[in-house]
Parts: sequence; structure tokens; C-alpha cells
Amino acid sequence: MNEIRIGLLGFGTVGAGVVEALQKNGDLVSRRVGAALVLRRIADLDLQRDRGVRVPAELLTTDAGSVIRDPQVDVVVELIGGCGVARDFMLEALKLGKPVVTANKALLAEHGEELYRAAEQNNTEIYCEASVGGGIPIIKALREGLVANHIDAMYGILNGTCNYVLTRMEAEGLPFDAVLREAQAEGYAEAEPGLDIDGTDTAHKAVILASLAYGFNVPMKRIPVEGIRGIGAADIAYTAELGYRVKLLAIIKRVGSEVEVRVHPALVPHDHMLASVGGVFNAVEVVGDVVGTTLYYGLGAGRAATSSAVISDLADVAHNLTHGIRRSASAVRPGTEGRMRSIGGIKARYYLNVSLLDRPGMLARVAQILGAHGISIASVLQKESRTEKQVPVIIITHSALEKNFQAALEEIDSLDVVGARTVRLRIEDCA
Amino acid sequence: MNEIRIGLLGFGTVGAGVVEALQKNGDLVSRRVGAALVLRRIADLDLQRDRGVRVPAELLTTDAGSVIRDPQVDVVVELIGGCGVARDFMLEALKLGKPVVTANKALLAEHGEELYRAAEQNNTEIYCEASVGGGIPIIKALREGLVANHIDAMYGILNGTCNYVLTRMEAEGLPFDAVLREAQAEGYAEAEPGLDIDGTDTAHKAVILASLAYGFNVPMKRIPVEGIRGIGAADIAYTAELGYRVKLLAIIKRVGSEVEVRVHPALVPHDHMLASVGGVFNAVEVVGDVVGTTLYYGLGAGRAATSSAVISDLADVAHNLTHGIRRSASAVRPGTEGRMRSIGGIKARYYLNVSLLDRPGMLARVAQILGAHGISIASVLQKESRTEKQVPVIIITHSALEKNFQAALEEIDSLDVVGARTVRLRIEDCA
Repeated sequence: MNEIRIGLLGFGTVGAGVVEALQKNGDLVSRRVGAALVLRRIADLDLQRDRGVRVPAELLTTDAGSVIRDPQVDVVVELIGGCGVARDFMLEALKLGKPVVTANKALLAEHGEELYRAAEQNNTEIYCEASVGGGIPIIKALREGLVANHIDAMYGILNGTCNYVLTRMEAEGLPFDAVLREAQAEGYAEAEPGLDIDGTDTAHKAVILASLAYGFNVPMKRIPVEGIRGIGAADIAYTAELGYRVKLLAIIKRVGSEVEVRVHPALVPHDHMLASVGGVFNAVEVVGDVVGTTLYYGLGAGRAATSSAVISDLADVAHNLTHGIRRSASAVRPGTEGRMRSIGGIKARYYLNVSLLDRPGMLARVAQILGAHGISIASVLQKESRTEKQVPVIIITHSALEKNFQAALEEIDSLDVVGARTVRLRIEDCA
Repeated sequence: MNEIRIGLLGFGTVGAGVVEALQKNGDLVSRRVGAALVLRRIADLDLQRDRGVRVPAELLTTDAGSVIRDPQVDVVVELIGGCGVARDFMLEALKLGKPVVTANKALLAEHGEELYRAAEQNNTEIYCEASVGGGIPIIKALREGLVANHIDAMYGILNGTCNYVLTRMEAEGLPFDAVLREAQAEGYAEAEPGLDIDGTDTAHKAVILASLAYGFNVPMKRIPVEGIRGIGAADIAYTAELGYRVKLLAIIKRVGSEVEVRVHPALVPHDHMLASVGGVFNAVEVVGDVVGTTLYYGLGAGRAATSSAVISDLADVAHNLTHGIRRSASAVRPGTEGRMRSIGGIKARYYLNVSLLDRPGMLARVAQILGAHGISIASVLQKESRTEKQVPVIIITHSALEKNFQAALEEIDSLDVVGARTVRLRIEDCA
């Protein structure tokens, strides 16, 4: 049986998970792919820490370069993360014509153009199943399973921390800060949660999905990103009452010849499959022009789930190298540019929570401003208030241009009868 | 660019869908796979009917054999269906060493052993993405995306007709017969609906999934199959009240060294993802020992969705033939036998609807029989009845052996205070 020899960079949580899964199921995988996956070298700066797996000491080194250059290493698995040394190591491996398997979404999203180009120039390939949706084989579904389709749209819940926080906020009626603190204590959120909570991690994954779907390197800096910090317990409760759930979504659409990519919290109809995705789970809905609506669901992070994705990439590497295939038809063509739609040009329905002084005629003034900007109201929810002078007025609008909303909300918030900045959340009916 | 030349057998609904999708997105697919998919010949007995797509007349023939044997045909797509001539044609193609793409679940489930063996002996391959879950790339997910995993369990909603009927029964409180008649009028159910409604179609798909997951040809005749004919509107309403939805499930489990495969209606917890799968949609939950729980959702049938799956198989054929790969590592090894668990040996929780005479002490007699067979009761729902002598008593049990249930229910139904056969539905908590 053919051998595929693996050089592993990064022996942290996921790295140790990959080693553990290979020890447990390596024979099964070898039988299934017709080639043995052999762990040849492991590089990490810390060789002392106990990872809960045993490996022969002679496999370990602190010198990543020696692993990459080792002629007995056929494929490099990059699990260091971040955009620092990981980038150098990945480029070095690609320049040697070695395929690279990676879970590094930040690196692919921020430096995709350079990396995809290096892969092309050296007739090799980057495998990144583990970079989006953890163990969900979404990259394979998108590239191969749905190969017959133009991708009309994708809606992704791609960050487990955000989804966990939002799920608990709704279930328990708790405010954001309290849930985040508990999530941190339980290990579901990082001590520095910004990358997750502010939407950057979701945006990294959106860039990868959009690039693979449309074949050009979608620039990270062109993507409007909003996180979930501003969401209040009251708004989660109001949206639930109206038949919606709040989810942090990556939204990717093909609109005519333009591609629209954005990340923000959105109201999803209560009976939509995406609304049922709770806790740390991820899901991606993919709408193809032939297949219609499909959805993929699973754990979006974690040692074991991510390892499953890394090993599926290694199985593909094994299949390809065994048959002398160094590079398949490329999904992302470096140097090509697609047209990106700017945020002002998108259309959406809106949930608005306007804090209005409880006095006659106030709602009429708000409605007038919306109407003047071509925004029509679909429904209004105003509750009686006995204790406050400011009452929350919940307005659901029909679809209108984003730039009209921004102009209208600026006017509304400058009214002297409006007590706080209007909460605005987009509604996505998905497909 | 390399050319892969297709011989299509069967120019019916799906066949015409494949031709249409290739005409629409063929260039896109060719660019993505690096090989042109060229439709070389089409065989069908009826060459007159309008399929809504135009093809050059010289492609058409009524002689399937000439298409299979045509040296200019690299791959045969079998979309005739059924276990008659389709079997002969498929064997003939395989014996010529040509890969076959098929959507024919009945044929693979009933004659898998013979077909997989023919593929192996002639160093070629059967591609069957379209045979399970329509457009959902579930076969690829199972074989490749989850290659690192032992499959612990699969729970599938695999028949759109059944799911449509059950969804409408619950939503509208209508009886089975009325919904089925409407489904037939709307084209969601066949005039002869037995294959769908009685669970056979779901069982065919379960056989294919289980065979691919465990690597041996699971025998169709070993699978207990129950359909949805016996389900009453009242039971759908009671289960909803208890927090469940009734779904026709294919259940596939690895229990120790045995494999358990069965098809029957089951109660799924209301907040489980599978419970959200409504109408004609399909979904498969796959639980792997590394990845954990994953789920795949989409249209389970129909011209367009099925075409998407057929073309993804053709893309794989193109990739493989272009690189001289005639056969990948085999998923199903003919001639191997796995151990199947018999229905009596399974364990499940149960929903029972016992029709009891409204007289003191009756529930105690039922409870006593259950207890004597080692079955303990989790909850009871008995409503006051003013108009009937027989009252429905709804019992949810804890988990117990199937054979104990069968013995207990036989005793219960023979009580003179029990007015009708007890309705029994298994509860699946899935994962």
C-alpha cells in the first residue's frame, strides 16, 4: 500500500486531535482511501506540554522548517493559526510543491491571493476543509457535491461562540454581558472574545466560502462586518414574539453580475432550518441554481470535529498523490477580480426598535420619515407603558435600499422625541 | 481540454433534467473540473414525447445496447429506473469496464452484491449520489467528507412524499387518506403510492447508506420496514402535545459489532433539527465517532435536484478518467458479510395509544403488564372524556427491548377492556 507521509506544524489542541484521530481510526482511513497516512514529523515550540496523546519522541522537533523541507514529508499540515509564521511556513511548503492542509481561516482570508498564487505557480494545492464549519464537509459539498450549480446564495452560522451566546440570551432572557461572562467561564468563549463576538472570524469564513463559490479571491476589506455586542435582551424577546430568531449570519449572494458578502446579526424566521441551529453548532445553507436549497450542519469548532475535516483533506491528498495528481482544476483563480456590491446597494427588510417619547403623534413622525425615504412599514408593535416616558416601538419594514435606511435612521435619531439610538437589525428570509 | 463522453439511458424526467442542466451549466462544470462533459448518445423507447429540452436528433436512439457499446461513450448514465432492463444494461456497461452513474436506488438495494461485484471484476466503478437524498451530496459527505469516522448512527428522512403527508397532517389536523389524495392531485404522491407510503423506497435508500457506511452489502430482506398508513390524525396531535413530531425515519446504527437498520415512523423531539424538516424536503443526520453530529438537508427528489447529483458524479468520473483512475478504493466490498441485529434485539422508547374502557383500575392493569415485561412508564396523558366509553390513554415508556414490547402489547390488546389495537410508535431521540 502506498504511503502518504505527513509533516504536522502546530501540536496544539487541533494538532493533538489530528494525531489522536489518526491513532484511533488511521487503519480505517487507510483502508478506505487505499493509502496509508503516516505521521512523519511534528513541529511545535512547546515539546513538554501534555496533549493527552503519546507520540514517539523522535517525531518531535521545534524546527518547523526542517519538517517542511524533509524529503520524507509529502504533505504539510499547518495548524499553527494566525497570520505570522504560519504564512511563511505555508509559502515555503507550497514553493517546494508540497500540498498544504490548513484550518487557518484568518490566513486564507487575509492572504488568500498570495497563497493561491504560490500554489498555482508551484503546481500544488491548498486544502482547507477545516477552515470553515469545523467538521462539516462544507468545502467539499460546495466544490464537488454542488459542482453543477451556480451558487445563488449562502447563509452561514459560522461562529459557535456567537451562536452559543445568542441561543442562551433567548432561552434565558439574559443580557449579553452576563451570558458572555458565563460562556468564558465554561470555555465556549475566549478570554479575548473580540475576534468571535465582533464578527471577524465569521467574515474570514465568509471570504473563503465566497471565493470558492465564485472563483475569485474576495477581498476581506470589502466586507461589511457587524458583531453581536449591541444586541439587547429586549430585542431578542421582541423578535421572538414576532416569529424570528437573531443569528449572526454570513450572507453571500449573487445579484446579477455582482457578488454581495456581508456579516451581521439578522432576524431569521422561526420555522426556518437555520433558526433551529442552537448552541455551538454551525450551519450553512447553500442555494444552487439547479439543486435548490441545501443545508449543512455540525460542530463548527473543537479538537475532534476539526480533526475530522483535516483528515478528510489528508485522504484527498492521499488519493491525488497516489494517482500522480498534483493539482485539480482550481477553485480560486488568483489574479481574477469579481465585482463586489457595496453595502449601500443591498436591499433588506428591517427590524427597528425606536425609543419614542410616549406622546400623541410620535409614531406618525417616524412613519413619515420612513415614507419619505421610500420605506414602507409592514407591521408595528407598541406596548402600553405605565412606568416609562420612553416606549419602545418595534417596526418591521418592507424591503428597501440600505442607503435609504441609513438616511432615514439618521433623521429619526435626530428627532428630539427619540430617546436612544434606534436599534436596527436586518431581516433575512433566506431561501 | 479532455472530453468525457456520456451515454444516457432513459430520457424521462430526470434524464431530461440532466440534459437541461448540462446545456445550462455545462461550461461552468467543465471549467471547474478541467474536462468537458459531452453528451454523446441518448437512448429511450419513446423518442416522440416533448421533454422541454432540445437535443440534436442524431443523438437519440431506441437501442440502449448500441449506446453502451459505443466506443465513443466513456461513461453510462442509467436513469431508466426499476430492476428490469436497467439491471441488464448496467451489468453490460460494467462488463465493458465503463463507469456507471445511476439514480436507481431499488436496483442498488436489491441487486447491489451482483453490481458491486461486476464493477470490481471489471476494474470500474458505480457512482450513485443521486440514489439517496436527491440533490443532497450525502454519499460524498459519507464516503469522503467523513472518511475519518466510524459511523455510529444515521437518521434519515428520505422520502419526500411521506414527509409531505406527515407535515400536512400535523399542520392541518387532517386524516391520512385526505392528505394523500390531495398530495396525489398536486403531484407530490404517485397514483400508486405504495413504494413511498409503505416505506420501501426509504428502505432502499437505507440499504445504500448502510452499505457505504459499513463496507458490506446490507441485505434488503433483513430490514424491518413499516410505512405511515396506520398513523392517525389523533396520534399526530397527541405527539405534538407531548413535544414530538412524527417522521418516517431510516435508522442505521452501529451497536457493538452489529449493524442495525430499520425503517418506521418515529417520534422526534420537537426541537431536534430533523423535526424542522418539512414538506418534500429530505435530511440525513450522520453521527461520526470523531466529528460528532452532522446533518445534510435538501430536496430529496425532482428533476432539477436529482440532476445536480448526477452531474456531480459525472464531474468525479471526469476527474478520475482524466487522470487514468478507473477505480478508487472501494466503499462496498462484495462478498463480505456484516452482522445484522434483528428487530427483537433493538432497544427503544415507545409512544403507546391504548384505547381503554373508561372504568376505574383500567390503567393499573395496563401498567402492570408493562411492568411484568420490564417496561417502565415515563409519562401518561389521559384526557377526560364525556362522550365516549373508550378513552385514549397515551403512555410514553422508558427504553426497553423490542421483543418485550411486542409480548406486552399482545397481552394488552387481548384485554377485554381494550377497545382497539394499541397504536405503537417508537421514539428516537437521535443525537
